[in-house]
Amino acid sequence: MQITRLEHDFLGERAIPDNAYYGIQTLRALENFHITGIPLKSEPLFVQALAYVKKAAALTNRDLGVLPEPIAAAIAQACDRVATGEFDDQFLTDMIQGGAGTSVNMNANEVIANVALEIMGHAKGQYEFCHPNNHVNCSQSTNDAYPTAFRIALSNKLVGYSRMLGELADAFAEKGTEFRDVLKMGRTQLQDAVPMSMGDEFRAFATNLREELLRIEDSRRLISEINMGATAIGTRVNAPDGYAELVTQHLRTITGLDLSLAGDLIEATYDTGAYVQLSGVLKRTAVKLSKICNDLRLLSSGPRTGLFEINLPPLQPGSSIMPGKVNPVVPEVVNQTAFYVIGADLTVTMAAEAGQLQLNVMEPVISFALFTSISYMTNACRTLREKCVVGITANARHTENQVRNSIGIVTQLNPVLGYEAAAEIAKEALKTGRSVYDIAVTERKLLSQAKWDEIFTFENLIRPGFIQ
Amino acid sequence: MQITRLEHDFLGERAIPDNAYYGIQTLRALENFHITGIPLKSEPLFVQALAYVKKAAALTNRDLGVLPEPIAAAIAQACDRVATGEFDDQFLTDMIQGGAGTSVNMNANEVIANVALEIMGHAKGQYEFCHPNNHVNCSQSTNDAYPTAFRIALSNKLVGYSRMLGELADAFAEKGTEFRDVLKMGRTQLQDAVPMSMGDEFRAFATNLREELLRIEDSRRLISEINMGATAIGTRVNAPDGYAELVTQHLRTITGLDLSLAGDLIEATYDTGAYVQLSGVLKRTAVKLSKICNDLRLLSSGPRTGLFEINLPPLQPGSSIMPGKVNPVVPEVVNQTAFYVIGADLTVTMAAEAGQLQLNVMEPVISFALFTSISYMTNACRTLREKCVVGITANARHTENQVRNSIGIVTQLNPVLGYEAAAEIAKEALKTGRSVYDIAVTERKLLSQAKWDEIFTFENLIRPGFIQ
Amino acid sequence: MQITRLEHDFLGERAIPDNAYYGIQTLRALENFHITGIPLKSEPLFVQALAYVKKAAALTNRDLGVLPEPIAAAIAQACDRVATGEFDDQFLTDMIQGGAGTSVNMNANEVIANVALEIMGHAKGQYEFCHPNNHVNCSQSTNDAYPTAFRIALSNKLVGYSRMLGELADAFAEKGTEFRDVLKMGRTQLQDAVPMSMGDEFRAFATNLREELLRIEDSRRLISEINMGATAIGTRVNAPDGYAELVTQHLRTITGLDLSLAGDLIEATYDTGAYVQLSGVLKRTAVKLSKICNDLRLLSSGPRTGLFEINLPPLQPGSSIMPGKVNPVVPEVVNQTAFYVIGADLTVTMAAEAGQLQLNVMEPVISFALFTSISYMTNACRTLREKCVVGITANARHTENQVRNSIGIVTQLNPVLGYEAAAEIAKEALKTGRSVYDIAVTERKLLSQAKWDEIFTFENLIRPGFIQ
Amino acid sequence: MQITRLEHDFLGERAIPDNAYYGIQTLRALENFHITGIPLKSEPLFVQALAYVKKAAALTNRDLGVLPEPIAAAIAQACDRVATGEFDDQFLTDMIQGGAGTSVNMNANEVIANVALEIMGHAKGQYEFCHPNNHVNCSQSTNDAYPTAFRIALSNKLVGYSRMLGELADAFAEKGTEFRDVLKMGRTQLQDAVPMSMGDEFRAFATNLREELLRIEDSRRLISEINMGATAIGTRVNAPDGYAELVTQHLRTITGLDLSLAGDLIEATYDTGAYVQLSGVLKRTAVKLSKICNDLRLLSSGPRTGLFEINLPPLQPGSSIMPGKVNPVVPEVVNQTAFYVIGADLTVTMAAEAGQLQLNVMEPVISFALFTSISYMTNACRTLREKCVVGITANARHTENQVRNSIGIVTQLNPVLGYEAAAEIAKEALKTGRSVYDIAVTERKLLSQAKWDEIFTFENLIRPGFIQ
Repeated sequence: MQITRLEHDFLGERAIPDNAYYGIQTLRALENFHITGIPLKSEPLFVQALAYVKKAAALTNRDLGVLPEPIAAAIAQACDRVATGEFDDQFLTDMIQGGAGTSVNMNANEVIANVALEIMGHAKGQYEFCHPNNHVNCSQSTNDAYPTAFRIALSNKLVGYSRMLGELADAFAEKGTEFRDVLKMGRTQLQDAVPMSMGDEFRAFATNLREELLRIEDSRRLISEINMGATAIGTRVNAPDGYAELVTQHLRTITGLDLSLAGDLIEATYDTGAYVQLSGVLKRTAVKLSKICNDLRLLSSGPRTGLFEINLPPLQPGSSIMPGKVNPVVPEVVNQTAFYVIGADLTVTMAAEAGQLQLNVMEPVISFALFTSISYMTNACRTLREKCVVGITANARHTENQVRNSIGIVTQLNPVLGYEAAAEIAKEALKTGRSVYDIAVTERKLLSQAKWDEIFTFENLIRPGFIQ
Repeated sequence: MQITRLEHDFLGERAIPDNAYYGIQTLRALENFHITGIPLKSEPLFVQALAYVKKAAALTNRDLGVLPEPIAAAIAQACDRVATGEFDDQFLTDMIQGGAGTSVNMNANEVIANVALEIMGHAKGQYEFCHPNNHVNCSQSTNDAYPTAFRIALSNKLVGYSRMLGELADAFAEKGTEFRDVLKMGRTQLQDAVPMSMGDEFRAFATNLREELLRIEDSRRLISEINMGATAIGTRVNAPDGYAELVTQHLRTITGLDLSLAGDLIEATYDTGAYVQLSGVLKRTAVKLSKICNDLRLLSSGPRTGLFEINLPPLQPGSSIMPGKVNPVVPEVVNQTAFYVIGADLTVTMAAEAGQLQLNVMEPVISFALFTSISYMTNACRTLREKCVVGITANARHTENQVRNSIGIVTQLNPVLGYEAAAEIAKEALKTGRSVYDIAVTERKLLSQAKWDEIFTFENLIRPGFIQ
Repeated sequence: MQITRLEHDFLGERAIPDNAYYGIQTLRALENFHITGIPLKSEPLFVQALAYVKKAAALTNRDLGVLPEPIAAAIAQACDRVATGEFDDQFLTDMIQGGAGTSVNMNANEVIANVALEIMGHAKGQYEFCHPNNHVNCSQSTNDAYPTAFRIALSNKLVGYSRMLGELADAFAEKGTEFRDVLKMGRTQLQDAVPMSMGDEFRAFATNLREELLRIEDSRRLISEINMGATAIGTRVNAPDGYAELVTQHLRTITGLDLSLAGDLIEATYDTGAYVQLSGVLKRTAVKLSKICNDLRLLSSGPRTGLFEINLPPLQPGSSIMPGKVNPVVPEVVNQTAFYVIGADLTVTMAAEAGQLQLNVMEPVISFALFTSISYMTNACRTLREKCVVGITANARHTENQVRNSIGIVTQLNPVLGYEAAAEIAKEALKTGRSVYDIAVTERKLLSQAKWDEIFTFENLIRPGFIQ
Repeated sequence: MQITRLEHDFLGERAIPDNAYYGIQTLRALENFHITGIPLKSEPLFVQALAYVKKAAALTNRDLGVLPEPIAAAIAQACDRVATGEFDDQFLTDMIQGGAGTSVNMNANEVIANVALEIMGHAKGQYEFCHPNNHVNCSQSTNDAYPTAFRIALSNKLVGYSRMLGELADAFAEKGTEFRDVLKMGRTQLQDAVPMSMGDEFRAFATNLREELLRIEDSRRLISEINMGATAIGTRVNAPDGYAELVTQHLRTITGLDLSLAGDLIEATYDTGAYVQLSGVLKRTAVKLSKICNDLRLLSSGPRTGLFEINLPPLQPGSSIMPGKVNPVVPEVVNQTAFYVIGADLTVTMAAEAGQLQLNVMEPVISFALFTSISYMTNACRTLREKCVVGITANARHTENQVRNSIGIVTQLNPVLGYEAAAEIAKEALKTGRSVYDIAVTERKLLSQAKWDEIFTFENLIRPGFIQ
């Protein structure tokens, strides 16, 4: 038989399994919310951040004399243990809930209270010595504690993502160096355009992604603005004088993050603009990754009837029916991740728009969308680098032959022959299947062999100067 | 000096240009709403449908004895003239307005009242003889008249769209027949897969689009449910007994559409589900068109470094710098149209979600999104057919050579050799650049020349049977 | 030490834990794909459907003489066991993968092959007796087996969802009956409009949702079209004559679903239109549910400074700081679910648009989006009914007082007094705070007490006739 | 009879109306693209920016000796005239076209060439003296000229938008001051929470929007990076040494904008990240505006059965049937504008994702989406300020009464009585309809009248301190 303890709130009394550190309000949340089946503990950084917030509040309440030193000390110690992950299994609230995060906040308040009670030598549930609301949640509301913890967790989670994205960009940059001397045709609108270096193409991928690192930093700056001390709606009701400023200072120390207190706490308590901005940054990177993966799939298409410019490392047989087929499975999975993230951005947008008056109650789904998007993007970046980019090889002979045989090189003759004469050569080449060289030099003698050679050096083709 | 007449409503008195058939409420709308700059008259089918609705109401009010015969007759005659487009220039309200369509409804009420006044021998503005609210709008509310007119306009607009989409599908089907004997490699995941007929590829485009015609009919059925007689919120307040049923009957006759009265008028008055459904159908077609255009661009890529399977008709020089370049400009513009429509679907989604209690006040932006989407899609279908599909030619020799030279044909050997042996041949072909035939028949003698010939007939390649 | 067996594919050899029923290709998938961390087994209906497909294929291959009877029998028996969920723990592939479902298909092929091997008295891995590709996947490709299984799973999953949605609608309908005699003000544009019955308001919610049941059936019809026998790209390569038709017949029997073979297998193999349509239906329902929940939250707002028309059952303390506060947590979580589903619809849209040529490789993310959306919606419907709708109570006295005190009832006087006179009364009432009755009857004597009483009966207010 | 001149390109010869300044390529574009019906001239800032780009190129080509001084001078003079809007009617290309902007670029090249020809004393069409491609487009490609002009136009357009948004924020701030002393209940989750100042609520709107001004500046910084000199794909083919740097310098001077040359021209030529970012910023502001307008509509709901906290200025009769009804039409139209902008952001997202290899050909629809979004948002901000915000009045007596009568004020007793005792009072008040004061002070004597008065000062209620 399971041993239980009785707990009550203003809706009534309930039995809690006595080994549970959570309490009655978490129990109610477990009963009320069954949407995703994914519990809070699946985001350990969020659990950790809740502990940071509660510790900072306890220390501040102690400093300001509204919480007795021993209780504050016990809470702080409990928070330290929660922050290490020791009690992650007690954070069971579904990732999406109603109540604007109240259940998450109470889950933390209850676990911390019970851990603190044990630290103080009491039994779990003896809330007269350390109460989830009166002590752990002292000077706080869900409406400041929850978003602050959420922002700290996001900030920390972005560090890992940013590193993984940076390493992916580096891998592209290395390929850029490796392929520096590979000549290939550039394409616009999928039509042959002018020659270029394959190294430049890969370096451009790196450039494209590295810009995202700056945007992620912008986002981290925006989400580092917190509203601790705002309490219910930003009027600071129930928070002692000086609390907001001091708790922010404690949190800066505890987290090591450059947190700042919002200037307008009423606005900060309902505003979800920073999440929309961050989600937009994730989306932008997803858009870029998707474009890059589309390119990788195009460039590796073939082997006989595609572009066949590069080879992706073969990872698994590509077909249950077509022998020998190998597919670009990693770019494909990254494309799909991008589509997920773009969809999640819409979720964030709608949730943000749905805020009303002094609070946005839709923050839990925003947190679900952002946490999963960051996780998936982090995974996608790692996978793309490890399983694909580092192993890409170039079919240099093939791409160089294509350049020699292309019509697009006629563009290089514009400055010498003019657009219309060059177009005439292009048209003839297309109609007859002959080469530009044949028509321009051999047949029509529009320029000398020497001039041709001067124009069509490798260096000139990939970093064209201007010859007249 | 402009001659004006004075009109008043319960907010006050205003001077109206006396040549204007619209009145004070339209004037207020013109002053209040300047968002898109696109006036109501840009959708003549909507103006027409408003006239249909007002005529049906007038006839019904006459039949039920709540509108004197002469006034009803004048209104009906005025509606006939408005429906022909004679007064389109009087419908100036911005396509997006607040007020759930009140301004549009009043624009129609006022124009029709003034036309009717002139028909009856009165001056514009002598509303004691025919009043925009008391007579033209009799037994109606914006909340039933506006959505009913909107639905009639949509239904009629879909006819033209559907025809244009059908003609596009037909054009693809004709190409399917034309290219029936063109052998080419099919591709999955952009990798060479197994041979197929290019005719099948184009016929599949037709199949893909023809399914949309059925979905459009589904939508027309859903939007044919109207709520005339619901008046303000569906309780039929101010509508005489029998009005709802009779006005629906009149409207069926006037429009020739298979309209039906909603069973639950409370629900029907706020529900925007039919618009969401229709928008989803437009989006689905946009998604398909975009995929097809992506394919056309891929298949026509080159000429020297792309797939080069088909040629799109050249429409304009493709570059201001690269001579002779011709781009797939029509598929490109269709892709862009698709992106617009997909975005507009989100607009509709958000507007639908924003409905509150007994009304959805966001219908004007829904109408703007749907009307423009249908227009743009209609234009895109026509353009794609006329300027692109009908002129597509196949590079049959090239695609047939690719099949012979492919590794993918090894799949045809599975039933004879088994997957693993076939995979071994594929791997060898890829490594050495040799052909499957060379390895399987000449070198390894895994099957006889006769067996090979039996398997690799043209018919077998494009409609493979199963040979053991 | 873990016992392993060696398996190989054309990329090399790998050791597999010998207690694993999956094989080398599943192992590669486990190594390659780490995006969501959510394994295939989290969708048991999908695993079941894969078993159905493999069984139907085995029986068909046996019937057509391309698979020996004993192997077919063992495969069929293995499929029966897999379909019961006995081997769910072997389906570990991440829900999002590259390869268009190849890893999922191979996961099924390998598990079934090894179960069949044990049934036949062989050891796992002795594929010469029953091979994942040559026997279990015989006459199939991922490109027909995967989408067919996906569609069967969707169809079955929709049954449960549909039931739960229907029960929610029923719960609203019951409240409609319960609140039939509750008089309240209807509102348009959040402004007081005209009176109505609260019962009508709740019945309209039921009507609104019941329409969705029909749309879900439409979707089930569209996804019941399958492409078995299409194999790689729809050309039926490697499938024996008659296979496609016969395997469809077997699948109808095995699943009990009304499945049909697509008319154009080339098109059916790449088309994702049915998923887009289904996702659109889910989105539409989400939009409606969100609107309904917005209404529930509005109507229950207060208790002292909101509309206070209804009371939602209190489920949990609503605030960690504001004592006694109870929040509409269930409608809130349903709103958030809706935002998730609307986001997921965009994921499906983008994935559908990304299909290229003969295949859409993005189906795995489509399956992830649809499966989670259906699950979450099912959960949301259950939660909304059980935890909220059935316990809603009306504040009838309050809402009836509001009607008596409202200005909106002046609309009922339109047919008697005309719009302008009525508007004049309304304006006066608003300015002075007096009642419509006071002004119209007592002061201005515009109508008699008898006429007033005739107009303002309860029945007349909620089902207004038309009195002159 | 219309006088025409003959022009030719490499696709053939066409007659152009001789009064037209555009030429054959524009003519082809007019024939090929009929999607929106909205011509380029509807964005005069874009036409102007094209002229700036062409002038800068001409000056640079002159400086570097690749364009003869007289031709450069004529082109520059022509550009000056085009920039003033003198030839706007010649810019007729549909806003959405295929060809990645080639038609727009050629439209500009042709108009400028013909204006320059007339300046030089030649007839239109005598391109041997000044050729659209060889001279006006010298050292350029559509792929650098088009996006550069687009970015300059965006940057200039954002100035007006930003000003209008700032003025809207200022209007809210002024209301914040005006309503400073109005006490009202704050609400979270639509439930009564704790008291606040209405002034704080309006000031928070200002804070919320002012943050957007910073984000717009971020966007302007990102789009100020241009790729002039990149030519076709970023390799600088056909651009003379030093061109890119010098033309950027000329453009800075001509436009007065802080433009900079992209560091990686290959990447810059295909990257659309800056548009995605800008679109995201517009979307974020739209989300905020929509939330604010939702609040305004909620707060002004009523007059008798809503929140009735504020009054929006009446602009037009609100109903064709309900006399005296006035609706929040301006917030409603702003909501709808927001939905449009959010939809347009998805269009931008999809177009950005669709870029391939060295170019994104979908820029025209990106430009269409961004230009319309900025226009509509600018209009919405102006309308909201002028027609709504500046005229808002507060129903202060009503809101103050609500505070006194609320249960939410019990939160102020937490620090004195503890959460549980306070919750008990709240529960009692809700059940009995009595006031918190009655229960806490009169009946239960939990605190003295003096303590109550100390806590419930006006100042304490809206800027609560912490009393023990």
